[in-house]
Amino acid sequence: MKFKAEDIKNSVEDILHSYITEPDQFSSLLEKAESYSILDGGKRLRPCILLAVCQMLGGSINDAMPFAAALEFIHTYSLIHDDLPAMDNDDMRRGKPSSHKAFGEDIAILSGDALLTRAFEIMSKEIALDMVQGKALAMNVIVKSAYEMVRGQVADIKSSKDVDSAYIEYVDNYKTAALFRAAFTAGAYLANADEEVVEDMEMLGTNFGMAFQLYDDFLDYDTDDCLNYAVLFGKENALNKIKEYMDNFISILDRYEYNSEIKKICFLEF
Amino acid sequence: MKFKAEDIKNSVEDILHSYITEPDQFSSLLEKAESYSILDGGKRLRPCILLAVCQMLGGSINDAMPFAAALEFIHTYSLIHDDLPAMDNDDMRRGKPSSHKAFGEDIAILSGDALLTRAFEIMSKEIALDMVQGKALAMNVIVKSAYEMVRGQVADIKSSKDVDSAYIEYVDNYKTAALFRAAFTAGAYLANADEEVVEDMEMLGTNFGMAFQLYDDFLDYDTDDCLNYAVLFGKENALNKIKEYMDNFISILDRYEYNSEIKKICFLEF
Repeated sequence: MKFKAEDIKNSVEDILHSYITEPDQFSSLLEKAESYSILDGGKRLRPCILLAVCQMLGGSINDAMPFAAALEFIHTYSLIHDDLPAMDNDDMRRGKPSSHKAFGEDIAILSGDALLTRAFEIMSKEIALDMVQGKALAMNVIVKSAYEMVRGQVADIKSSKDVDSAYIEYVDNYKTAALFRAAFTAGAYLANADEEVVEDMEMLGTNFGMAFQLYDDFLDYDTDDCLNYAVLFGKENALNKIKEYMDNFISILDRYEYNSEIKKICFLEF
Repeated sequence: MKFKAEDIKNSVEDILHSYITEPDQFSSLLEKAESYSILDGGKRLRPCILLAVCQMLGGSINDAMPFAAALEFIHTYSLIHDDLPAMDNDDMRRGKPSSHKAFGEDIAILSGDALLTRAFEIMSKEIALDMVQGKALAMNVIVKSAYEMVRGQVADIKSSKDVDSAYIEYVDNYKTAALFRAAFTAGAYLANADEEVVEDMEMLGTNFGMAFQLYDDFLDYDTDDCLNYAVLFGKENALNKIKEYMDNFISILDRYEYNSEIKKICFLEF
Protein backbone atom coordinates (compact mmCIF):
# COMPACT_ATOMS: atom_id res chain seq x y z
CA MET A 1 0.00 0.00 0.00
CA LYS A 2 1.33 3.44 -0.94
CA PHE A 3 0.91 6.37 1.42
CA LYS A 4 -0.56 9.60 0.04
CA ALA A 5 1.13 12.97 0.60
CA GLU A 6 -1.35 13.95 3.32
CA ASP A 7 -0.83 10.65 5.18
CA ILE A 8 2.90 11.21 5.06
CA LYS A 9 2.51 14.73 6.47
CA ASN A 10 0.27 13.43 9.27
CA SER A 11 2.67 10.66 10.16
CA VAL A 12 5.50 13.21 10.41
CA GLU A 13 3.45 15.26 12.88
CA ASP A 14 2.77 12.11 14.92
CA ILE A 15 6.40 11.08 15.11
CA LEU A 16 7.57 14.58 16.02
CA HIS A 17 5.11 14.58 18.92
CA SER A 18 6.31 11.15 20.01
CA TYR A 19 9.94 12.31 20.13
CA ILE A 20 9.34 15.25 22.43
CA THR A 21 11.31 14.46 25.59
CA GLU A 22 9.45 14.28 28.86
CA PRO A 23 10.38 17.29 31.01
CA ASP A 24 12.21 16.45 34.22
CA GLN A 25 12.29 18.20 37.57
CA PHE A 26 15.19 20.58 36.97
CA SER A 27 15.43 21.25 33.23
CA SER A 28 11.77 21.38 32.15
CA LEU A 29 12.28 24.77 30.52
CA LEU A 30 14.53 23.08 27.97
CA GLU A 31 11.87 20.61 26.87
CA LYS A 32 9.25 23.38 26.81
CA ALA A 33 11.45 25.43 24.49
CA GLU A 34 12.15 22.41 22.30
CA SER A 35 8.43 21.59 21.90
CA TYR A 36 7.60 25.25 21.31
CA SER A 37 9.84 25.33 18.25
CA ILE A 38 9.29 21.81 16.93
CA LEU A 39 5.49 21.79 17.19
CA ASP A 40 4.87 25.08 15.44
CA GLY A 41 3.01 24.04 12.31
CA GLY A 42 5.92 24.03 9.88
CA LYS A 43 5.41 22.66 6.38
CA ARG A 44 7.57 19.59 7.20
CA LEU A 45 8.88 19.64 3.63
CA ARG A 46 12.19 17.93 4.35
CA PRO A 47 10.90 14.96 6.36
CA CYS A 48 7.97 14.48 3.94
CA ILE A 49 10.38 14.44 0.98
CA LEU A 50 12.63 11.91 2.73
CA LEU A 51 9.69 9.57 3.38
CA ALA A 52 8.15 9.99 -0.09
CA VAL A 53 11.49 9.29 -1.79
CA CYS A 54 12.02 6.21 0.35
CA GLN A 55 8.53 4.98 -0.58
CA MET A 56 8.98 5.78 -4.29
CA LEU A 57 12.14 3.67 -4.34
CA GLY A 58 10.52 0.72 -2.60
CA GLY A 59 11.73 1.31 0.96
CA SER A 60 9.77 1.13 4.22
CA ILE A 61 8.31 4.39 5.49
CA ASN A 62 8.37 3.02 9.03
CA ASP A 63 12.10 2.33 8.94
CA ALA A 64 12.73 5.83 7.56
CA MET A 65 10.62 7.63 10.14
CA PRO A 66 13.34 8.35 12.75
CA PHE A 67 15.57 9.85 10.05
CA ALA A 68 12.72 12.08 8.84
CA ALA A 69 12.18 13.31 12.40
CA ALA A 70 15.91 13.93 12.85
CA LEU A 71 16.00 16.05 9.71
CA GLU A 72 13.15 18.24 10.99
CA PHE A 73 14.91 18.57 14.38
CA ILE A 74 18.03 19.81 12.57
CA HIS A 75 16.03 22.24 10.43
CA THR A 76 14.31 23.57 13.55
CA TYR A 77 17.55 24.06 15.51
CA SER A 78 18.94 26.06 12.57
CA LEU A 79 15.91 28.38 12.60
CA ILE A 80 16.26 29.02 16.36
CA HIS A 81 19.94 29.92 16.05
CA ASP A 82 19.38 31.95 12.84
CA ASP A 83 16.79 34.10 14.64
CA LEU A 84 19.13 35.03 17.53
CA PRO A 85 20.02 38.70 18.07
CA ALA A 86 23.66 38.00 17.12
CA MET A 87 22.46 36.56 13.78
CA ASP A 88 19.34 37.70 11.89
CA ASN A 89 17.74 39.17 15.02
CA ASP A 90 14.20 38.08 14.15
CA ASP A 91 11.55 38.59 16.81
CA MET A 92 8.92 36.51 15.08
CA ARG A 93 8.87 33.05 13.52
CA ARG A 94 5.79 31.54 11.88
CA GLY A 95 3.45 34.06 13.49
CA LYS A 96 4.66 33.71 17.06
CA PRO A 97 7.58 35.11 19.06
CA SER A 98 10.88 33.48 18.12
CA SER A 99 12.47 31.20 20.70
CA HIS A 100 14.75 33.82 22.30
CA LYS A 101 11.79 36.23 22.58
CA ALA A 102 9.73 33.56 24.32
CA PHE A 103 12.41 31.97 26.52
CA GLY A 104 15.43 34.28 26.55
CA GLU A 105 18.64 34.03 24.58
CA ASP A 106 20.31 31.48 26.86
CA ILE A 107 17.49 28.95 26.61
CA ALA A 108 17.12 29.59 22.87
CA ILE A 109 20.79 28.78 22.26
CA LEU A 110 20.57 25.69 24.48
CA SER A 111 17.31 24.43 22.98
CA GLY A 112 18.91 24.68 19.52
CA ASP A 113 21.90 22.72 20.82
CA ALA A 114 19.50 20.20 22.34
CA LEU A 115 17.47 19.71 19.15
CA LEU A 116 20.64 19.19 17.10
CA THR A 117 21.89 16.67 19.66
CA ARG A 118 18.50 14.91 19.84
CA ALA A 119 18.52 14.53 16.06
CA PHE A 120 21.73 12.53 16.32
CA GLU A 121 20.45 10.65 19.37
CA ILE A 122 17.37 9.49 17.44
CA MET A 123 19.43 8.28 14.48
CA SER A 124 22.23 6.71 16.48
CA LYS A 125 19.80 4.79 18.72
CA GLU A 126 18.06 3.44 15.61
CA ILE A 127 21.38 2.25 14.18
CA ALA A 128 22.62 0.75 17.45
CA LEU A 129 19.39 -1.31 17.54
CA ASP A 130 19.44 -2.28 13.87
CA MET A 131 22.85 -2.30 12.20
CA VAL A 132 21.86 -1.77 8.57
CA GLN A 133 24.24 -0.10 6.11
CA GLY A 134 21.48 2.01 4.51
CA LYS A 135 20.65 3.55 7.87
CA ALA A 136 24.29 4.39 8.57
CA LEU A 137 24.64 5.99 5.13
CA ALA A 138 21.43 7.97 5.65
CA MET A 139 22.69 9.26 9.01
CA ASN A 140 26.02 10.12 7.46
CA VAL A 141 24.53 12.20 4.65
CA ILE A 142 22.22 14.01 7.07
CA VAL A 143 25.11 14.89 9.38
CA LYS A 144 27.25 16.03 6.45
CA SER A 145 24.51 18.35 5.24
CA ALA A 146 24.07 19.76 8.74
CA TYR A 147 27.72 20.83 8.62
CA GLU A 148 27.34 22.29 5.12
CA MET A 149 24.39 24.31 6.39
CA VAL A 150 26.57 25.96 9.05
CA ARG A 151 29.18 26.78 6.38
CA GLY A 152 26.47 28.41 4.27
CA GLN A 153 25.21 30.43 7.22
CA VAL A 154 28.73 31.72 7.98
CA ALA A 155 29.21 32.72 4.35
CA ASP A 156 25.79 34.40 4.39
CA ILE A 157 26.29 36.56 7.48
CA LYS A 158 29.83 37.49 6.48
CA SER A 159 28.93 38.69 2.98
CA SER A 160 30.68 41.80 1.76
CA LYS A 161 29.26 44.27 -0.75
CA ASP A 162 31.22 42.84 -3.67
CA VAL A 163 29.30 39.63 -4.01
CA ASP A 164 28.97 37.75 -7.30
CA SER A 165 26.89 34.87 -8.62
CA ALA A 166 29.44 32.26 -7.45
CA TYR A 167 29.07 33.55 -3.90
CA ILE A 168 25.25 33.60 -4.04
CA GLU A 169 25.28 30.07 -5.42
CA TYR A 170 27.59 28.91 -2.62
CA VAL A 171 25.32 30.33 0.07
CA ASP A 172 22.11 28.97 -1.48
CA ASN A 173 23.68 25.59 -2.15
CA TYR A 174 25.03 25.16 1.36
CA LYS A 175 22.60 27.09 3.53
CA THR A 176 19.42 25.86 1.86
CA ALA A 177 19.97 23.09 -0.69
CA ALA A 178 22.14 20.95 1.62
CA LEU A 179 19.26 19.79 3.84
CA PHE A 180 17.04 19.12 0.80
CA ARG A 181 19.87 17.11 -0.74
CA ALA A 182 20.04 15.15 2.50
CA ALA A 183 16.26 14.55 2.41
CA PHE A 184 16.39 13.11 -1.11
CA THR A 185 19.58 11.06 -0.73
CA ALA A 186 18.83 9.75 2.78
CA GLY A 187 15.46 8.56 1.45
CA ALA A 188 17.31 6.69 -1.29
CA TYR A 189 19.85 5.11 1.09
CA LEU A 190 17.02 3.98 3.37
CA ALA A 191 15.42 2.25 0.37
CA ASN A 192 18.73 0.55 -0.36
CA ALA A 193 18.96 2.24 -3.75
CA ASP A 194 21.86 1.82 -6.20
CA GLU A 195 24.57 4.47 -6.34
CA GLU A 196 23.19 5.72 -9.69
CA VAL A 197 19.79 6.36 -8.15
CA VAL A 198 21.40 8.06 -5.15
CA GLU A 199 23.14 10.42 -7.58
CA ASP A 200 19.83 11.23 -9.27
CA MET A 201 18.30 11.98 -5.87
CA GLU A 202 21.26 14.20 -5.03
CA MET A 203 20.58 16.23 -8.17
CA LEU A 204 16.88 16.41 -7.33
CA GLY A 205 17.78 17.83 -3.93
CA THR A 206 20.18 20.38 -5.32
CA ASN A 207 17.81 21.58 -8.06
CA PHE A 208 14.82 21.74 -5.73
CA GLY A 209 16.79 23.42 -2.96
CA MET A 210 18.24 26.09 -5.25
CA ALA A 211 14.83 26.84 -6.79
CA PHE A 212 13.28 26.93 -3.31
CA GLN A 213 15.75 29.57 -2.09
CA LEU A 214 15.54 31.69 -5.26
CA TYR A 215 11.75 31.65 -5.06
CA ASP A 216 11.87 32.62 -1.39
CA ASP A 217 14.14 35.57 -2.25
CA PHE A 218 11.84 36.48 -5.15
CA LEU A 219 8.82 36.65 -2.82
CA ASP A 220 10.78 38.79 -0.32
CA TYR A 221 12.11 41.05 -3.08
CA ASP A 222 10.35 44.20 -1.91
CA THR A 223 10.78 43.75 1.84
CA ASP A 224 14.18 42.15 2.14
CA ASP A 225 17.41 44.14 2.32
CA CYS A 226 19.63 41.12 1.73
CA LEU A 227 21.86 40.66 -1.25
CA ASN A 228 20.36 37.78 -3.17
CA TYR A 229 20.05 36.63 -6.75
CA ALA A 230 16.86 38.61 -7.49
CA VAL A 231 18.31 41.81 -6.03
CA LEU A 232 21.59 41.44 -7.90
CA PHE A 233 20.40 40.23 -11.28
CA GLY A 234 16.79 41.38 -11.43
CA LYS A 235 13.46 39.64 -10.94
CA GLU A 236 13.20 38.33 -14.49
CA ASN A 237 16.60 36.67 -14.39
CA ALA A 238 15.67 35.16 -11.04
CA LEU A 239 12.46 33.70 -12.48
CA ASN A 240 14.35 32.26 -15.46
CA LYS A 241 16.84 30.66 -13.09
CA ILE A 242 14.05 29.16 -10.99
CA LYS A 243 12.43 27.74 -14.13
CA GLU A 244 15.75 26.21 -15.17
CA TYR A 245 16.20 24.46 -11.82
CA MET A 246 12.61 23.22 -11.80
CA ASP A 247 12.84 21.92 -15.38
CA ASN A 248 15.91 19.92 -14.39
CA PHE A 249 14.10 18.71 -11.29
CA ILE A 250 11.03 17.50 -13.20
CA SER A 251 13.03 15.89 -16.01
CA ILE A 252 14.99 13.77 -13.53
CA LEU A 253 11.95 12.96 -11.38
CA ASP A 254 9.93 11.89 -14.43
CA ARG A 255 12.32 9.01 -14.98
CA TYR A 256 10.85 7.41 -11.84
CA GLU A 257 7.50 5.69 -11.40
CA TYR A 258 5.27 6.53 -8.43
CA ASN A 259 6.59 10.10 -8.26
CA SER A 260 3.17 11.69 -7.80
CA GLU A 261 3.36 12.10 -4.00
CA ILE A 262 6.79 13.73 -4.22
CA LYS A 263 5.43 16.27 -6.70
CA LYS A 264 2.46 17.00 -4.42
CA ILE A 265 4.76 17.48 -1.43
CA CYS A 266 7.28 19.66 -3.28
CA PHE A 267 4.55 21.89 -4.74
CA LEU A 268 2.51 21.82 -1.50
CA GLU A 269 -0.49 20.58 -3.48
CA PHE A 270 -2.34 18.41 -1.04
CA MET B 1 52.30 -3.13 23.18
CA LYS B 2 50.61 -0.88 25.69
CA PHE B 3 50.59 2.88 25.19
CA LYS B 4 51.73 5.10 28.07
CA ALA B 5 49.64 8.06 29.27
CA GLU B 6 51.92 10.57 27.53
CA ASP B 7 51.70 8.66 24.22
CA ILE B 8 47.93 8.65 24.50
CA LYS B 9 47.87 12.41 25.11
CA ASN B 10 50.16 13.00 22.10
CA SER B 11 48.07 10.82 19.84
CA VAL B 12 44.94 12.79 20.84
CA GLU B 13 46.67 16.03 19.85
CA ASP B 14 47.63 14.49 16.51
CA ILE B 15 44.15 13.28 15.68
CA LEU B 16 42.56 16.59 16.67
CA HIS B 17 44.90 18.36 14.26
CA SER B 18 44.07 15.88 11.52
CA TYR B 19 40.33 16.50 11.92
CA ILE B 20 40.51 20.24 11.46
CA THR B 21 38.55 20.95 8.28
CA GLU B 22 40.32 22.72 5.44
CA PRO B 23 38.97 26.26 5.10
CA ASP B 24 37.13 26.95 1.86
CA GLN B 25 36.75 30.15 -0.10
CA PHE B 26 33.62 31.52 1.53
CA SER B 27 33.43 30.16 5.06
CA SER B 28 37.07 30.15 6.18
CA LEU B 29 36.23 32.15 9.30
CA LEU B 30 34.29 29.14 10.56
CA GLU B 31 37.25 26.80 10.30
CA LYS B 32 39.52 29.42 11.88
CA ALA B 33 37.18 29.72 14.85
CA GLU B 34 36.91 25.94 15.16
CA SER B 35 40.71 25.48 15.20
CA TYR B 36 41.12 28.39 17.62
CA SER B 37 38.99 26.61 20.21
CA ILE B 38 39.98 23.01 19.53
CA LEU B 39 43.75 23.56 19.43
CA ASP B 40 44.05 25.52 22.64
CA GLY B 41 46.10 23.26 24.84
CA GLY B 42 43.32 21.68 26.83
CA LYS B 43 44.09 18.78 29.16
CA ARG B 44 42.27 16.33 26.81
CA LEU B 45 41.07 14.40 29.85
CA ARG B 46 37.94 12.92 28.25
CA PRO B 47 39.51 11.56 25.05
CA CYS B 48 42.54 10.27 26.96
CA ILE B 49 40.26 8.45 29.40
CA LEU B 50 38.26 6.91 26.54
CA LEU B 51 41.43 5.59 24.89
CA ALA B 52 43.02 4.37 28.11
CA VAL B 53 39.85 2.51 29.11
CA CYS B 54 39.61 0.92 25.68
CA GLN B 55 43.24 -0.19 25.96
CA MET B 56 42.81 -1.47 29.53
CA LEU B 57 39.92 -3.67 28.39
CA GLY B 58 41.82 -5.09 25.42
CA GLY B 59 40.44 -2.90 22.63
CA SER B 60 42.31 -1.15 19.84
CA ILE B 61 43.35 2.45 20.47
CA ASN B 62 43.33 3.09 16.71
CA ASP B 63 39.70 2.03 16.33
CA ALA B 64 38.72 4.20 19.29
CA MET B 65 40.52 7.31 18.07
CA PRO B 66 37.64 8.95 16.10
CA PHE B 67 35.36 8.57 19.12
CA ALA B 68 37.96 10.18 21.38
CA ALA B 69 38.24 13.12 18.98
CA ALA B 70 34.44 13.44 18.79
CA LEU B 71 34.22 13.62 22.58
CA GLU B 72 36.75 16.46 22.69
CA PHE B 73 34.87 18.30 19.90
CA ILE B 74 31.68 18.06 21.99
CA HIS B 75 33.45 19.25 25.14
CA THR B 76 34.91 22.19 23.19
CA TYR B 77 31.57 23.23 21.67
CA SER B 78 30.06 23.26 25.16
CA LEU B 79 32.79 25.60 26.42
CA ILE B 80 32.26 28.04 23.51
CA HIS B 81 28.51 28.22 24.13
CA ASP B 82 28.93 28.36 27.93
CA ASP B 83 31.20 31.40 27.58
CA LEU B 84 28.66 33.41 25.50
CA PRO B 85 27.34 36.71 26.89
CA ALA B 86 23.84 35.20 27.23
CA MET B 87 25.30 32.40 29.39
CA ASP B 88 28.32 32.77 31.70
CA ASN B 89 29.64 35.81 29.81
CA ASP B 90 33.31 34.85 30.13
CA ASP B 91 35.80 36.96 28.19
CA MET B 92 38.72 34.60 28.69
CA ARG B 93 39.22 30.86 28.26
CA ARG B 94 42.51 29.10 28.98
CA GLY B 95 44.48 32.33 28.96
CA LYS B 96 43.22 33.74 25.68
CA PRO B 97 40.08 35.61 24.58
CA SER B 98 37.02 33.36 24.46
CA SER B 99 35.62 32.58 21.02
CA HIS B 100 33.01 35.36 20.93
CA LYS B 101 35.65 37.90 22.01
CA ALA B 102 37.97 36.76 19.23
CA PHE B 103 35.41 36.20 16.44
CA GLY B 104 32.14 37.83 17.50
CA GLU B 105 29.03 36.25 18.96
CA ASP B 106 27.61 35.04 15.63
CA ILE B 107 30.72 33.10 14.64
CA ALA B 108 31.13 31.77 18.20
CA ILE B 109 27.60 30.34 18.19
CA LEU B 110 28.08 28.86 14.71
CA SER B 111 31.53 27.41 15.45
CA GLY B 112 30.02 25.68 18.50
CA ASP B 113 27.23 24.31 16.28
CA ALA B 114 29.86 23.23 13.75
CA LEU B 115 32.03 21.41 16.31
CA LEU B 116 29.02 19.54 17.70
CA THR B 117 27.99 18.57 14.18
CA ARG B 118 31.53 17.55 13.22
CA ALA B 119 31.69 15.29 16.28
CA PHE B 120 28.73 13.35 14.91
CA GLU B 121 30.11 13.45 11.37
CA ILE B 122 33.37 11.86 12.54
CA MET B 123 31.56 9.07 14.39
CA SER B 124 28.90 8.43 11.77
CA LYS B 125 31.46 8.23 8.95
CA GLU B 126 33.44 5.70 10.98
CA ILE B 127 30.33 3.57 11.50
CA ALA B 128 29.17 3.81 7.88
CA LEU B 129 32.60 2.48 6.84
CA ASP B 130 32.80 -0.22 9.49
CA MET B 131 29.47 -1.49 10.81
CA VAL B 132 30.50 -2.79 14.22
CA GLN B 133 28.02 -2.92 17.11
CA GLY B 134 30.56 -1.61 19.66
CA LYS B 135 31.11 1.53 17.59
CA ALA B 136 27.37 2.17 17.30
CA LEU B 137 26.95 1.72 21.06
CA ALA B 138 29.88 4.04 21.73
CA MET B 139 28.38 6.73 19.49
CA ASN B 140 25.02 6.27 21.15
CA VAL B 141 26.36 6.76 24.67
CA ILE B 142 28.37 9.81 23.59
CA VAL B 143 25.33 11.42 21.96
CA LYS B 144 23.16 10.64 24.99
CA SER B 145 25.65 12.29 27.31
CA ALA B 146 25.81 15.36 25.04
CA TYR B 147 22.07 15.77 25.58
CA GLU B 148 22.39 15.27 29.35
CA MET B 149 25.06 17.98 29.38
CA VAL B 150 22.60 20.49 27.89
CA ARG B 151 20.01 19.51 30.50
CA GLY B 152 22.59 20.14 33.22
CA GLN B 153 23.51 23.52 31.77
CA VAL B 154 19.84 24.59 31.67
CA ALA B 155 19.37 23.53 35.29
CA ASP B 156 22.57 25.37 36.22
CA ILE B 157 21.72 28.74 34.67
CA LYS B 158 18.14 28.63 35.90
CA SER B 159 19.00 27.96 39.52
CA SER B 160 16.97 29.80 42.12
CA LYS B 161 18.19 30.77 45.56
CA ASP B 162 16.49 27.84 47.30
CA VAL B 163 18.77 25.14 46.00
CA ASP B 164 19.42 21.90 47.86
CA SER B 165 21.84 19.01 47.60
CA ALA B 166 19.58 17.09 45.16
CA TYR B 167 19.67 20.03 42.80
CA ILE B 168 23.46 20.45 43.04
CA GLU B 169 23.88 16.73 42.46
CA TYR B 170 21.64 16.90 39.36
CA VAL B 171 23.64 19.76 37.85
CA ASP B 172 27.04 18.18 38.59
CA ASN B 173 25.89 14.77 37.38
CA TYR B 174 24.48 16.05 34.10
CA LYS B 175 26.59 19.08 33.30
CA THR B 176 29.95 17.55 34.21
CA ALA B 177 29.81 13.83 34.97
CA ALA B 178 27.82 12.94 31.80
CA LEU B 179 30.75 13.41 29.41
CA PHE B 180 33.13 11.56 31.75
CA ARG B 181 30.59 8.73 31.96
CA ALA B 182 30.55 8.69 28.16
CA ALA B 183 34.37 8.57 28.06
CA PHE B 184 34.52 5.53 30.34
CA THR B 185 31.57 3.62 28.85
CA ALA B 186 32.36 4.38 25.20
CA GLY B 187 35.88 3.09 25.83
CA ALA B 188 34.35 -0.12 27.16
CA TYR B 189 31.93 -0.54 24.22
CA LEU B 190 34.80 0.00 21.79
CA ALA B 191 36.68 -2.82 23.51
CA ASN B 192 33.61 -5.05 23.18
CA ALA B 193 33.32 -5.36 26.93
CA ASP B 194 30.56 -7.31 28.72
CA GLU B 195 27.57 -5.43 30.11
CA GLU B 196 28.89 -5.95 33.67
CA VAL B 197 32.16 -4.22 32.78
CA VAL B 198 30.26 -1.41 31.02
CA GLU B 199 28.33 -0.85 34.27
CA ASP B 200 31.58 -0.65 36.24
CA MET B 201 32.91 1.91 33.75
CA GLU B 202 29.69 3.90 34.09
CA MET B 203 30.23 4.06 37.84
CA LEU B 204 33.85 5.09 37.32
CA GLY B 205 32.69 7.94 35.10
CA THR B 206 30.06 9.12 37.55
CA ASN B 207 32.36 9.01 40.57
CA PHE B 208 35.24 10.67 38.76
CA GLY B 209 33.00 13.32 37.18
CA MET B 210 31.32 14.24 40.46
CA ALA B 211 34.67 14.46 42.26
CA PHE B 212 36.09 16.52 39.39
CA GLN B 213 33.30 19.11 39.60
CA LEU B 214 33.37 19.31 43.42
CA TYR B 215 37.13 19.82 43.35
CA ASP B 216 36.79 22.51 40.69
CA ASP B 217 34.21 24.32 42.87
CA PHE B 218 36.47 23.87 45.88
CA LEU B 219 39.38 25.56 44.07
CA ASP B 220 37.11 28.43 42.95
CA TYR B 221 35.63 28.80 46.43
CA ASP B 222 36.97 32.29 47.09
CA THR B 223 36.46 33.78 43.62
CA ASP B 224 33.27 32.16 42.43
CA ASP B 225 29.84 33.57 43.23
CA CYS B 226 28.00 30.45 42.11
CA LEU B 227 25.94 28.27 44.35
CA ASN B 228 27.83 25.03 44.59
CA TYR B 229 28.38 22.26 47.10
CA ALA B 230 31.34 23.92 48.82
CA VAL B 231 29.50 27.24 49.18
CA LEU B 232 26.33 25.59 50.48
CA PHE B 233 27.77 22.96 52.81
CA GLY B 234 31.23 24.26 53.64
CA LYS B 235 34.71 23.40 52.41
CA GLU B 236 35.23 20.52 54.82
CA ASN B 237 32.04 18.76 53.78
CA ALA B 238 33.02 19.29 50.14
CA LEU B 239 36.43 17.68 50.76
CA ASN B 240 34.80 14.71 52.50
CA LYS B 241 32.44 14.27 49.58
CA ILE B 242 35.32 14.39 47.09
CA LYS B 243 37.18 11.77 49.12
CA GLU B 244 34.10 9.54 49.13
CA TYR B 245 33.75 9.71 45.33
CA MET B 246 37.46 9.09 44.78
CA ASP B 247 37.49 6.12 47.20
CA ASN B 248 34.64 4.57 45.21
CA PHE B 249 36.49 5.33 42.00
CA ILE B 250 39.71 3.69 43.11
CA SER B 251 38.02 0.66 44.64
CA ILE B 252 36.24 -0.12 41.34
CA LEU B 253 39.28 0.65 39.20
CA ASP B 254 41.50 -1.58 41.33
CA ARG B 255 39.47 -4.59 40.23
CA TYR B 256 41.03 -4.17 36.79
CA GLU B 257 44.52 -5.03 35.61
CA TYR B 258 46.55 -2.53 33.57
CA ASN B 259 44.83 0.44 35.23
CA SER B 260 48.02 2.43 35.74
CA GLU B 261 47.65 4.69 32.69
CA ILE B 262 44.07 5.58 33.61
CA LYS B 263 45.23 6.61 37.07
CA LYS B 264 48.00 8.74 35.61
CA ILE B 265 45.57 10.43 33.21
CA CYS B 266 42.89 11.05 35.83
CA PHE B 267 45.37 12.51 38.30
CA LEU B 268 47.31 14.33 35.56
CA GLU B 269 50.48 12.62 36.74
CA PHE B 270 52.52 12.28 33.59
